[in-house]
Amino acid sequence: MTTSAETLADLSEGAVLERIFPRLPASASQLLGPGDDAAVIRAPDGRFVVTTDMMIQGPDFRLAWSTPFDLGWKAAATNLSDVAAMGAVPTALVLAIAAPPSTAVSVLEGIADGVRACCAALAPGCGVVGGDLSAADALTLAVTAFGDLEGRAPVLRSGARPGDVVALAGALGDAGEGLALLFRYGVDDAGVPDAGRADRVKAEHPRALAAQLRPEPPIDRGPAAALGGATAMLDVSDGLAIDAGRIARASGVGLDFFSTALGESPERALGGGEDHGLLATFPAGVTLPTGFRALGTVTADAGAVLLDGVPHEQGGWDPYRGWDGAA
Amino acid sequence: MTTSAETLADLSEGAVLERIFPRLPASASQLLGPGDDAAVIRAPDGRFVVTTDMMIQGPDFRLAWSTPFDLGWKAAATNLSDVAAMGAVPTALVLAIAAPPSTAVSVLEGIADGVRACCAALAPGCGVVGGDLSAADALTLAVTAFGDLEGRAPVLRSGARPGDVVALAGALGDAGEGLALLFRYGVDDAGVPDAGRADRVKAEHPRALAAQLRPEPPIDRGPAAALGGATAMLDVSDGLAIDAGRIARASGVGLDFFSTALGESPERALGGGEDHGLLATFPAGVTLPTGFRALGTVTADAGAVLLDGVPHEQGGWDPYRGWDGAA
Repeated sequence: MTTSAETLADLSEGAVLERIFPRLPASASQLLGPGDDAAVIRAPDGRFVVTTDMMIQGPDFRLAWSTPFDLGWKAAATNLSDVAAMGAVPTALVLAIAAPPSTAVSVLEGIADGVRACCAALAPGCGVVGGDLSAADALTLAVTAFGDLEGRAPVLRSGARPGDVVALAGALGDAGEGLALLFRYGVDDAGVPDAGRADRVKAEHPRALAAQLRPEPPIDRGPAAALGGATAMLDVSDGLAIDAGRIARASGVGLDFFSTALGESPERALGGGEDHGLLATFPAGVTLPTGFRALGTVTADAGAVLLDGVPHEQGGWDPYRGWDGAA
Repeated sequence: MTTSAETLADLSEGAVLERIFPRLPASASQLLGPGDDAAVIRAPDGRFVVTTDMMIQGPDFRLAWSTPFDLGWKAAATNLSDVAAMGAVPTALVLAIAAPPSTAVSVLEGIADGVRACCAALAPGCGVVGGDLSAADALTLAVTAFGDLEGRAPVLRSGARPGDVVALAGALGDAGEGLALLFRYGVDDAGVPDAGRADRVKAEHPRALAAQLRPEPPIDRGPAAALGGATAMLDVSDGLAIDAGRIARASGVGLDFFSTALGESPERALGGGEDHGLLATFPAGVTLPTGFRALGTVTADAGAVLLDGVPHEQGGWDPYRGWDGAA
């Protein structure tokens, strides 16, 4: 039997942890790490930012499309992005993994490698300070991420004011295009996700597939936006129009996008999900922080999202409707 | 259709959240709560304690045995206990729930009610500051809990010294007995968990079943132990012998239990899982904090657990072996 064929059921929980821990990134903010009942993390300004998210095999990912490395990367990246969207610097993660006992240990090792690579690339100094291993029929990752506001006020969704500039750091539409390509071409003739066909799609559309499977949100632009005077900010997770609507409602303003700023297809830019860019508003006249580009302007139309001044559908995504159990 | 028959698929995510949020407990440490990309929590001494745990339908609970209220209560209680075991006061939780779209909304409401009741009973001031809703085939709860050390050093597993007193706050063996009773009598003739039979077991063995399904760990005894000079401490989650072995190995000492202190059946006390009592060591001669009773003494036998001076089996529990997928 080769090492990679070893399953979780072949090893004790302790032995699995010994294989995974060395691969996980260390946190520079850790005062006490794994090995006790809880970890202790630095919160230098007397506060910490926290966000949590679960990714489940089936509704949230398919093993025929995502490698374990991809899963670890994406689980970390999406949570880091929520921390950054508050204007905070990510400091630490806790990671709970549930998996069938028949899962190869190498799958968990791959997840750990993806988390480590993501933190190293997008949030150096952020690392895993604790976790939990469980058994389940569906591979499940639960990540909770922490951040340090460095003494600043958090940047909320509610601070946009008429006249502000609407700006974005990150790409638009690629991740949504990647998912659409996988659903169309990454399946076999019966519609079942297929690794071989997905590989072909990845080779043909590398940018869109990478954006979907291994996103690179502009984490360090979150604190940069806070320092640059951002009045409101969020992570674009469900699509630009939907998330712009969230700022519009929370702030009691309208967000009016210029079609000329949204690329060849404004509808693709407005409708794509899982972009994980940072959408922020800045006072007019402020020099936008590096990495942000102006997309529009804030108006007085409370709760509205507009395109060239015309109200635009905000849409909606629902975790219980967007998935049928068979997928 | 009655309200309780409404399923998650009948409502938008936002509507589900509107039903659940008002039922969740508030945190006195919350600076910014749900509604933005992340929450902001107070960490008055510049540090925070964090622990995480996942509970999954099948391996971790059966809906024929546990009510939704029980699940919410237990998910909160077990995480609060890990915070308390560091000597910290629990301040906040984040709660991620994944459920099949066919789940009744009342199930999630029941979970929220259980979390609220548990916090109110065991950790007043602690509340839920954020969360996540997802779809999954198996009901899954992921809780991450936070605590405040109030300026104290955390109480680790590694600080026990020969001559210390071994003491416990909480019950021993009841929770394990409750689970054994459910597996024996709470199933139908084919061995499938059965709600009607479980109800009969609950009526006949209320203490053991409550300890298993709705545990009441002595949360406030954690900070009390830290103030009382505890040299080591942990939450007894896998059984007294197994968890005593963890202190023994981390501290390089032996933990010798007096059979006379372990009740009628020392084996039941040493072997039961999920007690969630706090096992701590205190310097000899110290007055034990209220709620702690002496169970034994710390010896120089590195890594050993003993009963009346005789080395005792430490056993072991494994999440991937302790469960067959059919359960």
